[in-house]
Amino acid sequence: MARWEPNARERLVVAALDLFAEQGYDATTVRQIADRAGLTRTTFFRHFPDKREVLFAGQDTHARLLSEAIGTAPGAAGPLEAVGAGLDALAASFPAGRRDFGARLLAVVAHHPELRERAAFKHAGLAGAMAEALRTRGVPEPSASLAAELGARAFDTAYARWTAPDNAEPLGLLAGEALTELRDAAAALA
Amino acid sequence: MARWEPNARERLVVAALDLFAEQGYDATTVRQIADRAGLTRTTFFRHFPDKREVLFAGQDTHARLLSEAIGTAPGAAGPLEAVGAGLDALAASFPAGRRDFGARLLAVVAHHPELRERAAFKHAGLAGAMAEALRTRGVPEPSASLAAELGARAFDTAYARWTAPDNAEPLGLLAGEALTELRDAAAALA
Repeated sequence: MARWEPNARERLVVAALDLFAEQGYDATTVRQIADRAGLTRTTFFRHFPDKREVLFAGQDTHARLLSEAIGTAPGAAGPLEAVGAGLDALAASFPAGRRDFGARLLAVVAHHPELRERAAFKHAGLAGAMAEALRTRGVPEPSASLAAELGARAFDTAYARWTAPDNAEPLGLLAGEALTELRDAAAALA
Repeated sequence: MARWEPNARERLVVAALDLFAEQGYDATTVRQIADRAGLTRTTFFRHFPDKREVLFAGQDTHARLLSEAIGTAPGAAGPLEAVGAGLDALAASFPAGRRDFGARLLAVVAHHPELRERAAFKHAGLAGAMAEALRTRGVPEPSASLAAELGARAFDTAYARWTAPDNAEPLGLLAGEALTELRDAAAALA
């Protein structure tokens, strides 16, 4: 019978990121992550299939937040307005105290091709979830996928700016700004 | 001393795709791929690090074709025109006889999350190469990355249409059409 481990998931994520940053991703084992978190390997594998997935644990939650907010945006909202509502909902799920974690996460991902590949897949997954929610609103292709891609890019940009050392702006505001920049760039290109 | 194996790379790619389609990706080993191609495991590993990479062997060549054509597009060409020149060059590198191979490749990739992930990374890699070539032309961000993303999406769309059973249009024409559709969608969104 499994013991209830309070915050096991969060503790494993923090332990993994600490170890990846300290000694490198390749050198870090699941056992070390579990030890650092004060948990067992069995508990680790109850939460994650492998050490790579630890850093992308929030993907399903993020996709759901985006989809729900896009789905419940006012009927009169255009595709990019609905995407903006999705980004607001997603941004609100990141506590301000997560900024330092985010900065270290981006640094670790940037240094490992295997993690960059997984990040590209997460980007595509979140864009796909937004596109699906937009199609459900009646937005045709390729507009739905394009608006979703702008949303995913806006969030990536905003997250990088949010975690920058000198930033004082909230994530939601930065996401809105980045989406506006991308909309203007799309207008200029077209 | 390694023997010269004519067309070893191409033979390995075809053998791998045949086996993935016949018996599944997970069940296929490097040894089986090499056997089917009439080559050795050593020869396989001279060309590819693992069985997954076999299906994405063209990525570096594709990135180079895109970059060079974008770099040598007329100075007066706008970002999307330069991207269009890149897509023309890339499309021209696919012989018409590769359509059936392409259809089977898309089917195998669609059925395996591991391959879909790698395909998303290839998409991001090609978009990144185009964005870099556009920045070199003086296109600022986020316009460069956005135009590059439209190009990568246009090519994905065109490749899927090109390999469809009832298609009779050449890949380059389809890529140009897809890019126009995306440009129009961008204009409508913005």
